[in-house]
Amino acid sequence: MKEFETYLKTNAKLVEKNLSKWTGKIPNAPKILTDAMEYSLQAGGKRVRPVLVIATAEAFGKKAADVMPAACALEMLHTYSLIHDDLPCMDNDDLRRGKPTNHKVFGEDLALLAGDALLTYVFEVFAQNGKIKTIGAANTLAALQNFAHRAGASGMVGGQTSDVYAEGMSTQEAQSIRAEKLKKSSKKLADKSLRYFLLPPTAKETTPEAVLRYIHENKTGALIRASVETGALLAGAKGADLKHIQKYADCIGLVFQIVDDILDVTATTKQLGKSNSDAQNGKLTFVSLFGLEGSRKHAQLLIAKAQKALDSLKNVKRKNLAPLYGMAEFFKTRTY
Amino acid sequence: MKEFETYLKTNAKLVEKNLSKWTGKIPNAPKILTDAMEYSLQAGGKRVRPVLVIATAEAFGKKAADVMPAACALEMLHTYSLIHDDLPCMDNDDLRRGKPTNHKVFGEDLALLAGDALLTYVFEVFAQNGKIKTIGAANTLAALQNFAHRAGASGMVGGQTSDVYAEGMSTQEAQSIRAEKLKKSSKKLADKSLRYFLLPPTAKETTPEAVLRYIHENKTGALIRASVETGALLAGAKGADLKHIQKYADCIGLVFQIVDDILDVTATTKQLGKSNSDAQNGKLTFVSLFGLEGSRKHAQLLIAKAQKALDSLKNVKRKNLAPLYGMAEFFKTRTY
Repeated sequence: MKEFETYLKTNAKLVEKNLSKWTGKIPNAPKILTDAMEYSLQAGGKRVRPVLVIATAEAFGKKAADVMPAACALEMLHTYSLIHDDLPCMDNDDLRRGKPTNHKVFGEDLALLAGDALLTYVFEVFAQNGKIKTIGAANTLAALQNFAHRAGASGMVGGQTSDVYAEGMSTQEAQSIRAEKLKKSSKKLADKSLRYFLLPPTAKETTPEAVLRYIHENKTGALIRASVETGALLAGAKGADLKHIQKYADCIGLVFQIVDDILDVTATTKQLGKSNSDAQNGKLTFVSLFGLEGSRKHAQLLIAKAQKALDSLKNVKRKNLAPLYGMAEFFKTRTY
Repeated sequence: MKEFETYLKTNAKLVEKNLSKWTGKIPNAPKILTDAMEYSLQAGGKRVRPVLVIATAEAFGKKAADVMPAACALEMLHTYSLIHDDLPCMDNDDLRRGKPTNHKVFGEDLALLAGDALLTYVFEVFAQNGKIKTIGAANTLAALQNFAHRAGASGMVGGQTSDVYAEGMSTQEAQSIRAEKLKKSSKKLADKSLRYFLLPPTAKETTPEAVLRYIHENKTGALIRASVETGALLAGAKGADLKHIQKYADCIGLVFQIVDDILDVTATTKQLGKSNSDAQNGKLTFVSLFGLEGSRKHAQLLIAKAQKALDSLKNVKRKNLAPLYGMAEFFKTRTY
């Protein structure tokens, strides 16, 4: 475990150095905008997503430098989502990673624009990966398209949408909270079924468990999955190996969210660097549905599945798989 | 002129048909989100940007179908920028193209997310252009990277940032309006120079004219330029021809904005489909700086330059240049 933590820290630092390089390279923009982008990018965090890109690419025989632009893009995408999620019209949070949120420092309009600028820069930076000869244009374009799919309406933003309307579901207040929200929009929406707000039209059931699964698989899971897939696709992984590594990604993505839900209940605001707002807002969480012990057991089970998926990989450098095993273990045991 | 208007309408309809296909293809998202995305995408508009992608690609020997994904992506990018621009923390507009703005129908949170989802989908759709054999992955990736550059902090979002703080500059109220805005953000920003908010650090002067030029070249101009460049880069244009077509794009981009400023003063709310809010907000515009006649003369001059740039093109199908000449003329004479 100690070995993995060193790996995580070393690569996180490498990513941070490269993030600074990228934000330092933005010409023709008012300084307030690049300052706002940099403020949130440099606010810390574990850099789990870019390190997953690197670790997966290494497993498939590439080097960190081969996928560094895409790895940085993953972290920028994550950062934009936090800036927009903290806005007053969303979670209205004042603190993030122990520091005032972006709009508290730069104002709401600039926080909106800094998020938009980051989300756009994500793809400019990602595309740069095509100029690295060991990767090339075709693999980069395929990885970029898959990544955009996971980050958008079919993935992360879809999960965020459901999350906005799921507030209160665990406390049986869904109807009244939703009614309150709808007052702020047009009357036409009031007659729509719960499914319209919370789940894709293709969903088989509309239980709280189904909603929780959809939110977690997408709001958090999609980007964890995208990180692993990006590393794999850039490195040219395909066939059965791609399926196995996706299985791994799905499992650790869900573990990540379960641990988040556990920490929201058990950790202090100081440990989290933000307020424990999910429980307070009556949000649907693993803990509210399955209890602390049930959630921990669920996490154990998923870790075992993730490890099994790694065991099944064929065309990989097995000695380079240690960080991926370590990441799964780390997700389970992390306490901050 | 009539010929060009037919060309514009025919291609606009083609784009709209393809936009519907794309929004119909978004799996795994709550219906409220895809409805919100579609609401603004299908709210009309002249579809100038995607038609410019098509017209430029045709000039360089490709067909509309060869660049349709990228053309649709350009329109989606434009649409997301309108949704976010209309939000209460930005321009706080109730009407857009004669219909209630996105947040008036779906609420602020959903409008934010619909904009984010569209901006992400832009790149998923754009990347799809790489699968069209006449274009390929390399040209698509190069065009995508250039496009992201124009749409982000170095282009459109940079211009929007400056625009947010330039309110009131034409009426000598810049200081007090800026002070009011800064009250909503942190105190640290209050001591910064005007340049920090309005212009890139590399700008040579901080006059109202310099600010106006920066805003217009970027807030509107960058995306018009990106449309032309996208068509050209996908079609493999390079060297002197690429420079000439960029010159053309710069000129018509600026004409587009000058006409917008003129219409904001001379057209009715009904004609515009939105309120004439720029003049009311004391925004910096061509008309406020140069007067109506001065603005019209400036537009004439730019049209002539744009036509000259087209005259200079070498490796193009000259008979296919008519729509690009027509577009320049159209920008000058449009009254709606």
